[in-house]
Amino acid sequence: MKTLAEVFEHTLKDMYYAENAIAKALPSVIAASSNAALKKGLEAHLTETKDQIKTLKAVFKSIKSEASGEKCDAIEGLIKECEGIIEEAKKGTAADAALIGCCQAIEHYEIARYGTLREWAKALGHTEAHDLLSGILDQEKAANHKLTAMAVESINEPSARAA
Amino acid sequence: MKTLAEVFEHTLKDMYYAENAIAKALPSVIAASSNAALKKGLEAHLTETKDQIKTLKAVFKSIKSEASGEKCDAIEGLIKECEGIIEEAKKGTAADAALIGCCQAIEHYEIARYGTLREWAKALGHTEAHDLLSGILDQEKAANHKLTAMAVESINEPSARAA
Repeated sequence: MKTLAEVFEHTLKDMYYAENAIAKALPSVIAASSNAALKKGLEAHLTETKDQIKTLKAVFKSIKSEASGEKCDAIEGLIKECEGIIEEAKKGTAADAALIGCCQAIEHYEIARYGTLREWAKALGHTEAHDLLSGILDQEKAANHKLTAMAVESINEPSARAA
Repeated sequence: MKTLAEVFEHTLKDMYYAENAIAKALPSVIAASSNAALKKGLEAHLTETKDQIKTLKAVFKSIKSEASGEKCDAIEGLIKECEGIIEEAKKGTAADAALIGCCQAIEHYEIARYGTLREWAKALGHTEAHDLLSGILDQEKAANHKLTAMAVESINEPSARAA
């Protein structure tokens, strides 16, 4: 992993692993959430995540590489944190607030990585990869904004009052 | 961890642990970076991180609690990823680009968590904690923007050309 091209491909594999891990973890998060709008939002994001896995395959193809994942310590830690929260918070009045917080930490990880990846793609002259990655980045940012709005407008205050 | 107040304090402890872990990890990142501006930027961020630890102590005090950390799986994973990158990339031409990417993943984790924490503080009526956490959030966002600018303006292109 000495050149930017190698670092780019390695990080792409990290994200391919991460998106697959997120697709696997999301159903438990959806099951643990009690707010109907949050449940619906996360279900839509699961569909979006599966589409992003297809888009990542197209990114690999555009750089003439095979789609594959590489174990990503960061997403493992983020999901482990999320699972701990689900376990501890599920019987309380703040479970939905805690779950949104964890989902936003994962969203921000993705925003960071896709932001970096698309800039690397640009520097490397991978125009198609740049455009595909920018598309995923925009989706992650939009998903994160929706979660912020939901938390601030309808989850946090009732959670605080229920305490 | 059933109420929002408990989830808030738990997450505050996560971030106290995380900031201390970041302060411990940053010197190795600084040592591994070869770009003078990046080195200087990360040194400034180490100083800022130490100040943020003091600010977090003030947040704990404002909610009449004792400052303490709780092992945070997410930051452990993010730092482990960063250490792996340092190890693999340090002899290549893309080490600085890879390091910035890892630092931005950590910044985004902090942005996510402080964004959530300050909204919870607001919902819970902890005005002082809200303001202190908003201050840290602004610093993390500024640090992240500086890293993006550095990567895009002076690190990525030379890395790509050096390949």
